[in-house]
Amino acid sequence: MYSRASRRLIPVFTKPFQSKSYEGLLKRVTMASSQPKRPKVVTVDNMNPHVRTMEYAVRGPIVARATEIEKELAAGQKKPFPDVVKCNIGDAHALGQQPITFIRQVIALATYPELLNSDQFPEDAKKRARRVIGGCKGGSVGSYSDSVGIEPIRQDIAAFIERRDGHPSNPNEIMLCAGASEGIRSLLKCMVSGEGKNRSGVMIPIPQYPLYSASLAEFGCEQIGYYMDEATGWSLGKPELKRSITEARKHCNPVAIVVINPGNPTGQVLSLDNIKDIIQFAYEEKLFIIADEVYQENIYAKGAKFHSFKKVLREMGPEYQTMELASFYSTSKGFMGECGLRGGYQEAINIDPDVFAMLKKLISAKLCPTVLGQIAMECTVNPPTQGEPSYDQFIKEKKIVLDALAEKAKLVAETFDAVEGVSCNEVMGAMYAFPRIHLPKKAIEKAKSIGMQPDAFYCMQFLEEKGVCVVAGSGFCQVEGTYHFRMTILPSVEKIKDVMQRFREFHSKFMEEYKD
Amino acid sequence: MYSRASRRLIPVFTKPFQSKSYEGLLKRVTMASSQPKRPKVVTVDNMNPHVRTMEYAVRGPIVARATEIEKELAAGQKKPFPDVVKCNIGDAHALGQQPITFIRQVIALATYPELLNSDQFPEDAKKRARRVIGGCKGGSVGSYSDSVGIEPIRQDIAAFIERRDGHPSNPNEIMLCAGASEGIRSLLKCMVSGEGKNRSGVMIPIPQYPLYSASLAEFGCEQIGYYMDEATGWSLGKPELKRSITEARKHCNPVAIVVINPGNPTGQVLSLDNIKDIIQFAYEEKLFIIADEVYQENIYAKGAKFHSFKKVLREMGPEYQTMELASFYSTSKGFMGECGLRGGYQEAINIDPDVFAMLKKLISAKLCPTVLGQIAMECTVNPPTQGEPSYDQFIKEKKIVLDALAEKAKLVAETFDAVEGVSCNEVMGAMYAFPRIHLPKKAIEKAKSIGMQPDAFYCMQFLEEKGVCVVAGSGFCQVEGTYHFRMTILPSVEKIKDVMQRFREFHSKFMEEYKD
Repeated sequence: MYSRASRRLIPVFTKPFQSKSYEGLLKRVTMASSQPKRPKVVTVDNMNPHVRTMEYAVRGPIVARATEIEKELAAGQKKPFPDVVKCNIGDAHALGQQPITFIRQVIALATYPELLNSDQFPEDAKKRARRVIGGCKGGSVGSYSDSVGIEPIRQDIAAFIERRDGHPSNPNEIMLCAGASEGIRSLLKCMVSGEGKNRSGVMIPIPQYPLYSASLAEFGCEQIGYYMDEATGWSLGKPELKRSITEARKHCNPVAIVVINPGNPTGQVLSLDNIKDIIQFAYEEKLFIIADEVYQENIYAKGAKFHSFKKVLREMGPEYQTMELASFYSTSKGFMGECGLRGGYQEAINIDPDVFAMLKKLISAKLCPTVLGQIAMECTVNPPTQGEPSYDQFIKEKKIVLDALAEKAKLVAETFDAVEGVSCNEVMGAMYAFPRIHLPKKAIEKAKSIGMQPDAFYCMQFLEEKGVCVVAGSGFCQVEGTYHFRMTILPSVEKIKDVMQRFREFHSKFMEEYKD
Repeated sequence: MYSRASRRLIPVFTKPFQSKSYEGLLKRVTMASSQPKRPKVVTVDNMNPHVRTMEYAVRGPIVARATEIEKELAAGQKKPFPDVVKCNIGDAHALGQQPITFIRQVIALATYPELLNSDQFPEDAKKRARRVIGGCKGGSVGSYSDSVGIEPIRQDIAAFIERRDGHPSNPNEIMLCAGASEGIRSLLKCMVSGEGKNRSGVMIPIPQYPLYSASLAEFGCEQIGYYMDEATGWSLGKPELKRSITEARKHCNPVAIVVINPGNPTGQVLSLDNIKDIIQFAYEEKLFIIADEVYQENIYAKGAKFHSFKKVLREMGPEYQTMELASFYSTSKGFMGECGLRGGYQEAINIDPDVFAMLKKLISAKLCPTVLGQIAMECTVNPPTQGEPSYDQFIKEKKIVLDALAEKAKLVAETFDAVEGVSCNEVMGAMYAFPRIHLPKKAIEKAKSIGMQPDAFYCMQFLEEKGVCVVAGSGFCQVEGTYHFRMTILPSVEKIKDVMQRFREFHSKFMEEYKD
């Protein structure tokens, strides 16, 4: 079950995928060249092999097909469904979630400071805009910030972490980034090295978020999967961590462990004890801890609580206090859902000062993260407080979003779990359900015969027949021989009910068609 | 003169640089660890060697020191100058350039659509905001866009290119990116491969913009310098291109040529014939052309004109029509100077469709470029037109910026060139002067004795004594044995005059001190 092969991500399509628009592109290019064909300088055969092999399922071929179907529908083609519902990506606003007014007001004010004279804006939003503009060179959001971000914003992030954890945070250990993804990629990039058996390895959970598999493949680094146990609600035990690293040491040099909490795509929320175990394990095995905590506001399960890795580490024994730990947060998730603004930060503690200097040098070649994204991060970590004019509205808007997500988390997981041939763990947190589908042998064989992963085949059929776009479990890695898909819980309650109805119809027809 | 050694970028500091704040960081970290020292997991010795060796002078140690001096001044320390003038980076707004109102209005409207009801905004800005919001999923700038960018914006970019060049442009060949840097890096990343003699090589101009040297080092790719001739106004001849590639083929596999036009740091504007020569050369040598055209609006020299590589290629013979060419533009330069918003695009023609699909896959792991940066790009390529309410103000604002830059370009180059021991070519375009300083032997020896590049030593002295921050020529590469620095022409005319006065004083004192 835990074969070496399963450590590597299996592409969704084992044969090359050709979308229709892609064929169109090919045709156009060919037509343009009436000349005798001059061979291309850069081809898939001589390009960067790491880029060639990387996969990023969340935006892969199924999603490309969904976009095509949307265009077909718009062009008047008849389909057995009225619309495409894109449940492939945690993109809240795309599915109707309303932005938090305070965030948008501060950005508008900072972008167009003429508005500071308008009575259409509350005083706290204006005050905040003045604070961030004051941190911008020349008083303009159009100037480059320091590569690590705007100083007052880094101070406010540190204050937020201190309030959250009850432990000090140092603004000099905080770097803004354009969404958490960019920060994670820079950090990984900075640490990986070596060839052959000395090649750096990074432990990642299986199932995982494909940013990790894609980036590790791109950087030529070894992906070391550790499996979470689906049977016990995606729990994680030290024996599996130990098994994973022991095997990995035979062929690479493990340097870091990634933990996603709350989990993506699995939705589990780690317990305090689980986190302690992981820190202890990382201590014993000399690993850098990368804590992906972008869903820290998204906790729905009764009794579940978010514990930051840093807080837990700070409350463990003195021997742990110099461990290297980086934690990531983002404006894209939580109650904000501001994906398009590309705001994020990392806090990195105990990092070797020379390495930290190198990391800063690395990001400096990208100049700076978007200033307006930094402002979105500022408003997220430093929202209006009681007594301020924007407070009531902020709390109300935040509650609407989080209450609805909690309701949908329950609805989706329970509905899936009640369907025959499907099992689904509780969605304790984050924004996704990750149901397991027990596919009949005939469906598996059919998929393989056309060069597709069985769950990708299932998802593509679901899309073609019902217009619902989800991501196959093979894009996230999974225990070999098991099949899943990831579906976001972001559409409105009404829409989710519609999607669940479409699912039930599709699933029973599919199972009937391919029954053994 | 053109030794192999000069192909590689020489670090500004040959001994490790320790800034004061960096020492502070070290101290703090050490104090925190009262425990017996646990070795760091990631150190400079085992980290990514490519990241370790890369250099990015525009934000290097001289700039770090400038920031420290600013803080020292703010803390009341006495210095022989009233303020630090940062002429190290093309950051227009930081130096007082005013933003273009139309850009800011459209972003504010799109961010906070409540403002669409306000009478504080002209109708054309509102109409534009509606158009871009219409291209955003869920009508929100907070949703992820497609990785290649928002469709209506890509259409408007194609229309802009068509108007500019008089040749068709296809929106499907256009990708938005977070500043041109990100796009250039992704493209380079995608194409490089191989080891040893098969390692990809990319031709770049010397002097060059350090984004290229830094990214090529990071990607483990060979940097192939071709030298522009300072004596003839940084002109470029086919013999030098030929010499450069012939030598490079002995130890790597050249795949692409980068051209920066107008030039950074050199400020030359390529003539039509020069561009034709380069395209012909790339054709003969089977190279992918990377045209960095971010300064296309910044042309000051009489008679000089911007010719895009694509336009020139389209007007050459049929054999050139299938050549691979990528061109980059940005919101950060031109008359906009919107660096902090991170807007940019690339147009890539004739790229192998399979490679193009891989490039899209690569950028999809970063999800999407900032939507607000995309909107800044939209307003740049599609400004108000005659008859629209914002037109007059837009034209006026644009003219103020470009006229002032033209005046300063002339002032700076002429002042430098008049100083003994300094020579400076005309600043035909872009935003920088790149004067050559003829350093006395004694100064060179002094620099070497303290482990610094001679021009870095000179620039550091200039900073310490006069508070002016410029970037040493060694950060851009230069003919061995020559010394330069790059200074932006962005401060106000008043400030530039002050800077030039500080320079004259510093330079004559320095030359006196180190005279042979």
